[in-house]
This record gives sequence, structure tokens and C-alpha cells, in this order.
Amino acid sequence: MTAENLTGESMEYALYYWPTIQGRGEFVRLALEEAAVAYVDVARHKKGLAAMTAMLAAPGTPPFAPPFLKAGELTIGQTANILLFLGARHGLAPRAEAGRLWAHQLQLTIADFVNEVHDTHHPVGVSLYYEEQKKEAKKRAAGFIAERIPKFLGYFERVLQENDKRGGFMVGGRLSYVDLSLFQVIEGLRYAFPNAMRRDGARYPGLIALHGMVAERPNIAAYLGSRRRIAFNQDGIFRHYPELDP
Amino acid sequence: MTAENLTGESMEYALYYWPTIQGRGEFVRLALEEAAVAYVDVARHKKGLAAMTAMLAAPGTPPFAPPFLKAGELTIGQTANILLFLGARHGLAPRAEAGRLWAHQLQLTIADFVNEVHDTHHPVGVSLYYEEQKKEAKKRAAGFIAERIPKFLGYFERVLQENDKRGGFMVGGRLSYVDLSLFQVIEGLRYAFPNAMRRDGARYPGLIALHGMVAERPNIAAYLGSRRRIAFNQDGIFRHYPELDP
Repeated sequence: MTAENLTGESMEYALYYWPTIQGRGEFVRLALEEAAVAYVDVARHKKGLAAMTAMLAAPGTPPFAPPFLKAGELTIGQTANILLFLGARHGLAPRAEAGRLWAHQLQLTIADFVNEVHDTHHPVGVSLYYEEQKKEAKKRAAGFIAERIPKFLGYFERVLQENDKRGGFMVGGRLSYVDLSLFQVIEGLRYAFPNAMRRDGARYPGLIALHGMVAERPNIAAYLGSRRRIAFNQDGIFRHYPELDP
Repeated sequence: MTAENLTGESMEYALYYWPTIQGRGEFVRLALEEAAVAYVDVARHKKGLAAMTAMLAAPGTPPFAPPFLKAGELTIGQTANILLFLGARHGLAPRAEAGRLWAHQLQLTIADFVNEVHDTHHPVGVSLYYEEQKKEAKKRAAGFIAERIPKFLGYFERVLQENDKRGGFMVGGRLSYVDLSLFQVIEGLRYAFPNAMRRDGARYPGLIALHGMVAERPNIAAYLGSRRRIAFNQDGIFRHYPELDP
């Protein structure tokens, strides 16, 4: 399937992201897959990494970092910004201003949480190896499990429970990119902190149900079963270090 | 002056943020001040903190954290989201989609940088005191000065230099909220890391000039000289710990 742009031309998206991790690019992949639009995951193809590096070095309006999406003449960086764009184009967010800003607000809060997930294994420095900051990571991960997971998931659970539209979605009565992203967050937390999630997951029944519902959507289920879905691993944002999840 | 909403009614904004720090709220304050729109900085008034707490606890679409802005019926959380909204309403961002997304992308990159500024004094845990993580903070701040300031400011400087419109702005040929936010970033870095900025500031001539230009804009100059501007202090995001800035 191909997307139609505003002038009716058919268009293909090009996603630029690291080829061996889910990372932040995964939030974009899930939206593209659910919307069933044509896209190329550029860096996973031959010479794709070089193409990505060239885009970052090109003059004009270069993104700071992957992921970024090329959509015709537009190059859009920052995960939440890409989702803002895709949400409006492909019915993955409310159309009206209030709903659009609300979905984006939730996505930015997810981005904050994802940053904190990353910091559990890299509290001291982005450019140091995990092994060089293992002691500090243990401290940070303990606080993350005891305080930050409950604070963020508790908030998202509350929002879901207080949504007065039926369906079990985060925003209104329809699926949005926020639901897809929270699926990924729950999936990632279960991979990185299986003990904590087994112990405390029942506190978030709405989110757990949402995770299951997203996983069963036909386009998402097909994607998860395909080779396009990269497995979790120790280079991504969600990493499983047993010592961080006692 | 009062803002006009889309139906032409006059409207006053209510900003909710911690009353004793600049923090993330300052990026919103600068936009409101430059646009010369009427707003109440709620928590700085009597019973304002209680009002802010009540808003966070109210059912519906509660923000995760301050700052948030009440604009008529809308409540908008997340700093970059608030600026997206204000930018469109008050001419502080391009109108066309490409420019609007580009400005927002830059703002989200500023938000990432501001998170890293915060982590220099809180690498191990948000809920611990600085004194409990001083050793780790020293390591993290060293990497921040050596690698992260050059990476982020180098990027913003490059974007500014590659902007083909005259005027020395970040986005196109007019002031946007991105310029206001980068003023605040430079101001904050000079407060928190005066030695590093004295040593390395000359690498970013465009940003330094931008900082000066923003400071001299009449509405901003008036604001900075007023009691509405809270001074930097050791509770905000930008903190001056001499041991972190050798």
C-alpha cells in the first residue's frame, strides 16, 4: 500500500534509524506498520547506513540524531514530532486541536520515561560502557523500579481509567500512536525488568489489557511475527541486565 | 494586553509552574513575555500552589507535571507542546507545516539537552539530594562539558550558520520560540558552568550573538529587569556547583 500526500500523489516514506536495535525508531515503525503505509527502513538496506550518515551531515535542516523520516520534501526528526506528523496524516490521533495536543502531550511524557529507562544502564555517561558504570546503574535502577515505574505507569493507568470513552484506549474512543507506544513500553519493561513487572504488573490492569489489544491488531501481529521486527537486545534502550532487576 | 482567541474573545492564560525556580517553566514565560500576552503565573500568587496541585489531581486529562498552561478550555502540558501551541497563536513559529515541524524538532532537541543539564547534578536519582550523588555528578559533569555541550551547541550553531535567511535567527528570517529557548540555554550554561563557557564559548559565535539579540528585545529586556524574572538558584535545572565546573 502507498500513502497519498496532500496533492494526491502516491508517496513512500523513508525511515532512517540504526539497523540493529528497536530503540526510539521502534515507536515510528509501529505507527507505520499499523497504518499499513509503504516505507523503507533505509539503514537496514545495503549502503543504508552511509545514506543515513550523509543525511545527518547534509546542509540545511539536519536532524540532531536518528530516527528521522523522509516524507517527500519533508525531513522530520525527533520521535514524538514524527508521530505528530504521522498521526495527523494516517488517522492515528484526534483531528481537533484539543485531542491532538493531548495525544502529543502523552507522547512527550512517554519520551521522558524512555529517557529514564535508558539512564538505568547509563547513569554516568552516554559515551562510557555499561561495565564502567555498573555500580551507579544498580543504584539508579533500584530507584527506577521503586519510584519511577510506579510514577509513570501509575499516571498512564490513571489517564486510561479516566478516559470516559469506551474501548480501553488512551485518547478518546479510537486507537492512537499513544497506544502503540505504550504497547512498546510495556513490552520493553517486561524484557528489561521481568521480575519487577511480574511482581508489580497487576497494578496496571488497563495498560496490560491495552498491551494485549495492540499485540492482537492484525497489522501489528503480522509485523511482530515478521523479520522486520528486530528482537530486543543489549544495545537498545531496553536492556536486560539481571543485576538491575533483582 | 490580552490575547484574542479564535472567536475573538479576549482571553488570559494561566501558567502553572513551581513558584521559586526558572526551570522548564521559564521557556514558556519567555514566549508569553515576548508575545506580550496577558498571563497569570498562578503558583506565585496566594493559594496558587494549592490550585496547581488540585489541577494535577483533577480527573480528565491531567498533565504529568508542571509546567502546564490553561488557555480557555484547553489545558496543555509538556513545555515543547505548550510552545507549539503558543508559537502558532502568537507568531512565534512559522505557519507552514515544514517550518512548524522544524521549529518543534529543534525545541525537542533543546528539551533533550535540558534533561542532560539536569542529570549533571542528579545522575543517580531524582529523589536523592545532590550531596548523595556528588561523586557521580562530578563524572557526569566532566563528560557533559567535554562531549555533550560541544555536541548540542555545535549542532545548534551549525543550524544557525546554515540558515540561509538573514537575521541571525534559528528558523527562517524571524524570531521564534526556538531563539528564546536558546537564549535561556546560553544564559543557564553561563550560570552553571561559567568556566567552561568562558573557555569554549567562542566556538559558538552565532549562538552568543543570538543570546545578546534576544536579551535586547524590548519585551524580553523589560521582563529580565522585572520581579517576574526569578533569579537562577540551586533548586532549578541550571545549578552552579563550582566542583562541577573546574
